[in-house]
Amino acid sequence: MTVTVRPVTAADEAQWRARWEKYNIFYKRTVPENVTANTWKRFLDDKVPSYAAVAVDDSKPDGDNIIGFVTFLPHMFTGSIEDQVYLGDLYVDDEARNGGAGRKLIEYVYDWARQHDIYSVYWHTQHFNHRAQLLYTKVADKTDFVQYGKMIKK
Amino acid sequence: MTVTVRPVTAADEAQWRARWEKYNIFYKRTVPENVTANTWKRFLDDKVPSYAAVAVDDSKPDGDNIIGFVTFLPHMFTGSIEDQVYLGDLYVDDEARNGGAGRKLIEYVYDWARQHDIYSVYWHTQHFNHRAQLLYTKVADKTDFVQYGKMIKK
Amino acid sequence: MTVTVRPVTAADEAQWRARWEKYNIFYKRTVPENVTANTWKRFLDDKVPSYAAVAVDDSKPDGDNIIGFVTFLPHMFTGSIEDQVYLGDLYVDDEARNGGAGRKLIEYVYDWARQHDIYSVYWHTQHFNHRAQLLYTKVADKTDFVQYGKMIKK
Amino acid sequence: MTVTVRPVTAADEAQWRARWEKYNIFYKRTVPENVTANTWKRFLDDKVPSYAAVAVDDSKPDGDNIIGFVTFLPHMFTGSIEDQVYLGDLYVDDEARNGGAGRKLIEYVYDWARQHDIYSVYWHTQHFNHRAQLLYTKVADKTDFVQYGKMIKK
Repeated sequence: MTVTVRPVTAADEAQWRARWEKYNIFYKRTVPENVTANTWKRFLDDKVPSYAAVAVDDSKPDGDNIIGFVTFLPHMFTGSIEDQVYLGDLYVDDEARNGGAGRKLIEYVYDWARQHDIYSVYWHTQHFNHRAQLLYTKVADKTDFVQYGKMIKK
Repeated sequence: MTVTVRPVTAADEAQWRARWEKYNIFYKRTVPENVTANTWKRFLDDKVPSYAAVAVDDSKPDGDNIIGFVTFLPHMFTGSIEDQVYLGDLYVDDEARNGGAGRKLIEYVYDWARQHDIYSVYWHTQHFNHRAQLLYTKVADKTDFVQYGKMIKK
Repeated sequence: MTVTVRPVTAADEAQWRARWEKYNIFYKRTVPENVTANTWKRFLDDKVPSYAAVAVDDSKPDGDNIIGFVTFLPHMFTGSIEDQVYLGDLYVDDEARNGGAGRKLIEYVYDWARQHDIYSVYWHTQHFNHRAQLLYTKVADKTDFVQYGKMIKK
Repeated sequence: MTVTVRPVTAADEAQWRARWEKYNIFYKRTVPENVTANTWKRFLDDKVPSYAAVAVDDSKPDGDNIIGFVTFLPHMFTGSIEDQVYLGDLYVDDEARNGGAGRKLIEYVYDWARQHDIYSVYWHTQHFNHRAQLLYTKVADKTDFVQYGKMIKK
């Protein structure tokens, strides 16, 4: 299997949505349709700094070859003049695991970051998600930080 | 001691810088002068969505009454239409600890978030920073997430 | 407040039981009476290597002066000829916190360990018990280890 | 590959020592020869409650078929009349990973525990050992506990 990573295009919507839904199931959360539609629109809007890329299995036909995706966005950081990039979501199909797609999606974000003068890339994962962390320990550093959160809208 | 939290103003620069320096020492990092100057300028620029507020000891005279600060910035989130707020930095003077300033700084961010239709507020702390976490467990939820990072510029 | 730590004696039973009960409430567990009775008996039996010591507030009268306790037991270790000591339980009355009793109870175990040719002393705490860890970081090292468990009897 | 788990015997010494050495390298520690000799002797002594079992690849000849080992020991617990079992060491050859040997070694300890009226089995692993934890999450529960330790002899 050869895997290529490229930015999403409008034609990818159905394939992206199918994976976004599985990603949400993994995190046991429900995302309303208007949020998904808005998020998708933002990826395609050049004026909005919210990005998505997809991993494509080159052996499959167009329209049925997406096996994963990543989303990311730059934001300011008080400790640097350059922005940081927040890698928000990462998903690879169950049947495509261990084929290098996850690593290539992360490296795509690194490349984008290098080209856009980014200070650092960061993301989160649940401390008990060992399958993901087997990959993350190879391509990044686990920091000493844990996350606190407070819902405002609910 | 009565503590009030308010947005930073240009007159606070020296007091803020003194605490920013101590905050950087706590994290064993050096922030170049041009970064600090740029970060300060952004707080004061209404067109830049990077914010800072200070905790003021009301019993002390103007110009010598700041005892802590918080910084925060909103950014997009793929799981909501509303932005999330990233609370980036929080500092309270050693001699002002346990006087409620930390909690008031966090609650100031919550209030700002409510007024700006924010989805959630989140931040990070080192897993071994137990003094900070004694406060955080009272005002927020510890999530299951740990952080991975990759320096791009160095 | 002057605090002294000494081995338990038969006369301490009521005072120890009152604290043991609060300790179990803290951990949201119920310990059957026959277990408590057996555990207490073991502490007093010189032939059983399960030990307990109590922290005593010297300003209070005998019979009403215990403010905390520790239990510990040595066991073999494959990485040393000498035994390790497992510090199993540690409790200090809420109203006696921050008076040095917790530290003295731990140091009592260290002293016992030195006198009995022990390799190391270890214990566990919940990762979110920040109040306890503020003390532990002063007297010991947090290891990289987390604990897995499997109930056999239930 | 069919894997069987059985108690160690005197004839296993060379094979066990080879794996014990790799296990120590994994943990970046040096165990003196007199400690290894003593630990081995204890496994074979029926009067000493320190146990070891080995995983055997049934397709290989006797004397060259051990692919992993586990050690364990029962000790008292203040919260039960029955002992707990501390599973101290677990090792599987790199080339035998994902063949079920690790799980069978743990289940051997569970069986021993059931036959000896044990309350629970517990062990530790480094929080960043994700390969091990992919197995542990299938056969046991990760507790909320982290470990503190204090060297006494050094």
